[in-house]
Amino acid sequence: MDASAEVDHLAAERSAARFDVEAMKVAWAGSRHAVEVGDRMARLVASDPVFRKDNRTMLSRKDLFKDTLRKAAHAWKRIVELRLTEEEAGMLRLYVDQPGYVDLHWGMFVPAIKGQGTEEQQKKWLPMAYKFQIIGCYAQTELGHGSNVQGLETTATFDPKTDEFVIHSPTLTSSKWWPGGLGKASTHAVVYARLITEGKDYGIHGFIVQLRSLEDHSPLPGITLGDIGGKFGSGAYNSMDNGVLRFDHVRIPRDQMLMRLSQVTREGKYVHSDVPKQLLYGTMVFVRQTIVADASKALSRAVCIAVRYSAIRKQFGSQDGGPETKVLDYKTQQSRLFPLLASAYAFRFVGDWLKWLYMDVTQKLEAKDYSTLQEAHACTAGLKAVTTSATADAIEECRKLCGGHGYLNSSGLPELFAVYVPACTYEGDNIVLLLQVARILMKTLSQLTSGKQPVGTMAYMGNVQYLMQCKCAVNTAEDWLNPVAIQEAFEARALRMAVNCAQNIGQAANQEEGFYERSPDLLEAAVAHIQLVIVTKFISKVQQDIPGPGVKEQLQNLCNVYALYILHKHLGDFLATGCITPKQGALANEQLGKLYAQVRPNAVALVDAFNYTDHYLGSVLGRYDGNVYPALYEEAWKDPLNETVVPEGYHEYLRPLLKQQLKLSRL
Amino acid sequence: MDASAEVDHLAAERSAARFDVEAMKVAWAGSRHAVEVGDRMARLVASDPVFRKDNRTMLSRKDLFKDTLRKAAHAWKRIVELRLTEEEAGMLRLYVDQPGYVDLHWGMFVPAIKGQGTEEQQKKWLPMAYKFQIIGCYAQTELGHGSNVQGLETTATFDPKTDEFVIHSPTLTSSKWWPGGLGKASTHAVVYARLITEGKDYGIHGFIVQLRSLEDHSPLPGITLGDIGGKFGSGAYNSMDNGVLRFDHVRIPRDQMLMRLSQVTREGKYVHSDVPKQLLYGTMVFVRQTIVADASKALSRAVCIAVRYSAIRKQFGSQDGGPETKVLDYKTQQSRLFPLLASAYAFRFVGDWLKWLYMDVTQKLEAKDYSTLQEAHACTAGLKAVTTSATADAIEECRKLCGGHGYLNSSGLPELFAVYVPACTYEGDNIVLLLQVARILMKTLSQLTSGKQPVGTMAYMGNVQYLMQCKCAVNTAEDWLNPVAIQEAFEARALRMAVNCAQNIGQAANQEEGFYERSPDLLEAAVAHIQLVIVTKFISKVQQDIPGPGVKEQLQNLCNVYALYILHKHLGDFLATGCITPKQGALANEQLGKLYAQVRPNAVALVDAFNYTDHYLGSVLGRYDGNVYPALYEEAWKDPLNETVVPEGYHEYLRPLLKQQLKLSRL
Repeated sequence: MDASAEVDHLAAERSAARFDVEAMKVAWAGSRHAVEVGDRMARLVASDPVFRKDNRTMLSRKDLFKDTLRKAAHAWKRIVELRLTEEEAGMLRLYVDQPGYVDLHWGMFVPAIKGQGTEEQQKKWLPMAYKFQIIGCYAQTELGHGSNVQGLETTATFDPKTDEFVIHSPTLTSSKWWPGGLGKASTHAVVYARLITEGKDYGIHGFIVQLRSLEDHSPLPGITLGDIGGKFGSGAYNSMDNGVLRFDHVRIPRDQMLMRLSQVTREGKYVHSDVPKQLLYGTMVFVRQTIVADASKALSRAVCIAVRYSAIRKQFGSQDGGPETKVLDYKTQQSRLFPLLASAYAFRFVGDWLKWLYMDVTQKLEAKDYSTLQEAHACTAGLKAVTTSATADAIEECRKLCGGHGYLNSSGLPELFAVYVPACTYEGDNIVLLLQVARILMKTLSQLTSGKQPVGTMAYMGNVQYLMQCKCAVNTAEDWLNPVAIQEAFEARALRMAVNCAQNIGQAANQEEGFYERSPDLLEAAVAHIQLVIVTKFISKVQQDIPGPGVKEQLQNLCNVYALYILHKHLGDFLATGCITPKQGALANEQLGKLYAQVRPNAVALVDAFNYTDHYLGSVLGRYDGNVYPALYEEAWKDPLNETVVPEGYHEYLRPLLKQQLKLSRL
Repeated sequence: MDASAEVDHLAAERSAARFDVEAMKVAWAGSRHAVEVGDRMARLVASDPVFRKDNRTMLSRKDLFKDTLRKAAHAWKRIVELRLTEEEAGMLRLYVDQPGYVDLHWGMFVPAIKGQGTEEQQKKWLPMAYKFQIIGCYAQTELGHGSNVQGLETTATFDPKTDEFVIHSPTLTSSKWWPGGLGKASTHAVVYARLITEGKDYGIHGFIVQLRSLEDHSPLPGITLGDIGGKFGSGAYNSMDNGVLRFDHVRIPRDQMLMRLSQVTREGKYVHSDVPKQLLYGTMVFVRQTIVADASKALSRAVCIAVRYSAIRKQFGSQDGGPETKVLDYKTQQSRLFPLLASAYAFRFVGDWLKWLYMDVTQKLEAKDYSTLQEAHACTAGLKAVTTSATADAIEECRKLCGGHGYLNSSGLPELFAVYVPACTYEGDNIVLLLQVARILMKTLSQLTSGKQPVGTMAYMGNVQYLMQCKCAVNTAEDWLNPVAIQEAFEARALRMAVNCAQNIGQAANQEEGFYERSPDLLEAAVAHIQLVIVTKFISKVQQDIPGPGVKEQLQNLCNVYALYILHKHLGDFLATGCITPKQGALANEQLGKLYAQVRPNAVALVDAFNYTDHYLGSVLGRYDGNVYPALYEEAWKDPLNETVVPEGYHEYLRPLLKQQLKLSRL
């Protein structure tokens, strides 16, 4: 049921809000147009029975996979029939909300060919991909190799006699392992392998390899293909055919090497093109930007469920049998939930800013200006790491905030968690990414002495003299509402942690050894830097003109909640580096409590502004109308165990036990 | 495969250990006898094909439930056939490792009758329960009511005309909801309901109610029964029939009210017996004690998997194609994993101590000495909350530490997480419990002024004068190895946080309002108190005589790792309260790094000491022999999706897409 439900159990909550929800929807979505398209696509999906997903956790692996194939085909049919724009099609896929091969086809296969293929290759392969005449995936990781791409073992050896590459899996650990869409659906893959020609190993390159017959879908000779097995959760990513792939000397034409950056000639010479390597970073910025945007989506769904349910659920606090207190009114609930609500908005806005950064980087790359590339790379890698880790933890926290019922699949939260957590690992393990950020921080610091001014999100590091000795001016709790005070405290904390690391590394016998020894501290410094970026971008956002009654005020509140929550959570950092005093820390915490009280009456409306349909939320607890209990009750009876009153197995395993006839029975 | 495997890929790790693993097994299990019994039962289960669990995540809900019934009956058969002792039977059930109705039958139904039933009632019901002539569950929570037992709505109205109670569910939200074993298996339940007699509501009492026919297992008239639906994870708790139960004026004889503490007479008079109410607290201490023990089991399983796999998995660090570095050698991996290894041991030893506390409380209760009851209650409630929350987070952290492969069901970690997390909610939501601890802390503080000396784990609070002003004497990193320094810092931190809370509450208009406003801070103070308890008990343990070469030294290391890790994680607490200086905090962190280096060569042996079979671990990544990659590869092919090379759904949903015939097809 959607907003059209007859009784709205959350009506009182909604009318208590002190801002215009419709205007907030625009602020969240980015534009009125985005709200409108999202709305239309969400309803299109929700109203189509093929896209139902309430039974997803009850399907067997095979049925779930078949259901994914059906939905993908149906979505494509609708996209074609309705002549949807690229934007609309993307939204439609989002609301179908089931991982499947199309994600990799559009998200990895097509971009890989676009980014690494020559114009000729693009002309040949993209039209087929655009029409789904072929289905592609992205075969990079191997059984024994994930984060370290340079360690991949698959080989692509050029054979000048036949003008072909021979793709081969020399070991068990070189089996391609994890690529989504590989196990069952894809006909083609971009395969990453060590290019060997003239007896020399030129490292990892991409190759377009056909995997399955376009006639009967059987694997081509020399190719072994399968699914790698069940994954976390009941439904979750089990709709995806993450696959294993082994090559036994499989031959492909030379022109299926992706040759935009380097080529192998007919004679087997390895040559670089004049296209700068840096272009690849642009793609990475793009992909990670979408991951940050996805973090805000996943987090906001979990928060929406937890906030609505917390406004329905009552517990304790009754006097003489009177009504109990809504759990949302408890300070402990608020202090756990509202920071996550604020984080959802924070990640949304930093994600919007990353979109801008991607365009900026792209323009600069086209102008062969690489001056901001490293900083942009650090920033996107770090934001990917920090937002995905925080989101995974936050979804689970929202589940716990829903008490026992959050553990039911019908709450939607177990699935949301299980389907989300791989984001912490894919596209760069978060720890590996944060160490990359730390490396760039250390480099930036070391270059300060030679007068090189840091740029973009690292510009504050140029202010090192001031930030190393500045004292926080906060005297009252209200002083913490001043964005200048917040910004400076976060800058000083991040810089001082980085400087501490640099000094400690400097004392080591050599830099590399020092970096290794101090890597746990470097992780913390990297997180501090990225949290500064998020706070900074949120502050910039709320300093802009934001239309709609009360909207800007709410976002200012949430911005302060986010910043002061991070400050409280990482108080040790701020105190250890002397950025603030214990007294100032206590004032921040006091102000945080006051901010929660201001968020409280607006909480339900703030999650309404995400504009999610009940279909997309997929949660009995998060229903728009708040009619939770009858829905929970109804949902329970759908479980297959309830098909019979007396369970299967009673006669074999319960009755003999109860009748004390177990010894006679053969089990 | 077990220790008998031909090649041990972890042999070098094992031989590097600087202590005697067999002696450590004894230290972990508690006695040589416990090791022997555990070993024997684990092997009994592992060698019996009925108890296989490697296919568990692939079974449908119905098949999984049937499998649980089968295992339960088979386990009982073996227990009877082999005349196992209670200890052996408990171990056997542990290693069967599948939640099911027997857990509630033995863990809740029987203890409830023992604790709350009269001698007569015990004589009538327990023999049937002991022989499984009846199967019982514990029906307390309702759809609308969990933590707040006093808010339950089910009624038990005495009818003096027939000498019966009428059990009734007056509302939808009064439906019993969640009890394990209720949905499909149980024949009886202890039902908690509001006792009403002579028109007066006497609050919540327990009643033995028969639910199903002992002849054909059908629900008795007036009783509606079902399963509440799927839960987190693929297998996990889906083997359990958590149930829903509604009563429509169901009549039971008066003598099925559990009457040890209070009775209703034939005339309908409500009378208290002379048995003290406090006895009920003893049961709570017992149940929560087992939950803390379970926390160390679950955590140690996850840590065992992550440590072994980290010693096999290699990534990065190769020079010129040479071997990569074991991920266990990375400082970032150590700084995340070794604190969890230390936590497993910490929780194990505090769990052992809780067993002693339970016996101590029981003896005192029998002597009508209630002086330590409140402190013991706070301590067990708090330890339940802190260890279960930390364990849930740690299992997920271990999963992430296994990278992508940790997301596969074959890693065992998704299931371990999904099956464990409800421990944060059941038997007292962790937040609710911590607030209870905080309340007792505040009360203890307020009684100091009247000269009442705190006892047991709160005794340190009597030292308030000293602890409020003491200064940490640490000057070097090594100084942090002194248990006196650690103990004092933790005591000062816990006490000062509690005192801060008390002072802030004191400033509020009234105590209750102040407690409510400050509840987020109170949670933190409660956690600080409980962490002190854990550290204190670990320190006491390692100060005892522990036999075996090197064993005591390893445990001392782990004790220091645990304490300094908590100190680093909660540095803000220690600095804000002035218990240590920023410099001392940095020294603690430095010492922590040195301790990790000492744990490193012993890590694999330290998890071997848990003595888990490969069957119990249920993880391809955690295999004793470390032969991970062939096993992962082999496991993948067992997925149902791999039954056919071309997937079901190809002809309906993939081929029409690829052949551009989608428009013609009916989806």
